[in-house]
Amino acid sequence: MKYGVVIFPEKKIQDIANSYRKRYDPHYALIPPHITLKEAYDFDENHLNEATNHLEQISRETAPFEILLHKVSTFHPTTNVLYLAVQESEDIYSLHEQVNSGELFHESSYQFIPHITIGQKLPADEMHDIYGRLRMVNVQLKTRIDRFHLLYQLDNGSWTIYQTFLLRG
Amino acid sequence: MKYGVVIFPEKKIQDIANSYRKRYDPHYALIPPHITLKEAYDFDENHLNEATNHLEQISRETAPFEILLHKVSTFHPTTNVLYLAVQESEDIYSLHEQVNSGELFHESSYQFIPHITIGQKLPADEMHDIYGRLRMVNVQLKTRIDRFHLLYQLDNGSWTIYQTFLLRG
Repeated sequence: MKYGVVIFPEKKIQDIANSYRKRYDPHYALIPPHITLKEAYDFDENHLNEATNHLEQISRETAPFEILLHKVSTFHPTTNVLYLAVQESEDIYSLHEQVNSGELFHESSYQFIPHITIGQKLPADEMHDIYGRLRMVNVQLKTRIDRFHLLYQLDNGSWTIYQTFLLRG
Repeated sequence: MKYGVVIFPEKKIQDIANSYRKRYDPHYALIPPHITLKEAYDFDENHLNEATNHLEQISRETAPFEILLHKVSTFHPTTNVLYLAVQESEDIYSLHEQVNSGELFHESSYQFIPHITIGQKLPADEMHDIYGRLRMVNVQLKTRIDRFHLLYQLDNGSWTIYQTFLLRG
């Protein structure tokens, strides 16, 4: 089964992200706007208990924190993704590193860049056009992070919640 | 903000339900297949703590249980909904009654009938046609219920998870 670990920002920010995703993100209907803490990975259901224990322990030891979404950015030329960028934050890097350790460690060839995707799989010229407009938008969206969620993927590509972990360190 | 309380059955059953929902349910993309424990209701965010405390206490006192989805049924003529019916189960009625009490009590004019919607908002003749075929299908799907979730609705009508409550009574 395929699992992933994500943060959902507060509703106001999800609504803003969706106003872009509706037009620019073919994954719009598969999952609400989110910050990925751990990319989709295949995982044997028999190890689910160990995984949730791992996440539970992290959540017990991590205090809630705030992040600031401060601009629209892009992963071009790596991929044609547009996203709301999270301003440098030790807290979220640390949370990512802890989640991606122990039971859940997987080597990634990508650097972790916390973000909320608002567009993807766009033709290059369309992406440049949209990015040219959105990079001028003044983005200053604070959101408090006090939980994260373990999700699993259904056969149709959409994601269902398995469990919430409340930050209470 | 609009909240709801639901159970997601195990993945296998969600995939089966989605194979119907894809064709027959316009809410297919808004939420994964689920059993509603408490219908969408408007709720002041300031009371969220009391609501989660209420749900937390219920989950502490309720033991996990099994349910059997045993047939395809319909709410016609009340509404043109097709669903996987949950066989009579004291456990799920009791869980519903507890969730819909105290902080979260709302009078409903409908009887609680636990189900997984697989089709809705269908024209009457199409619904009868589909129901005529699906009522002959032999459905025997057991699923263990060991958690429920509090969700909230975004402006586009889709649902995001707020918190999971593990049954551990």
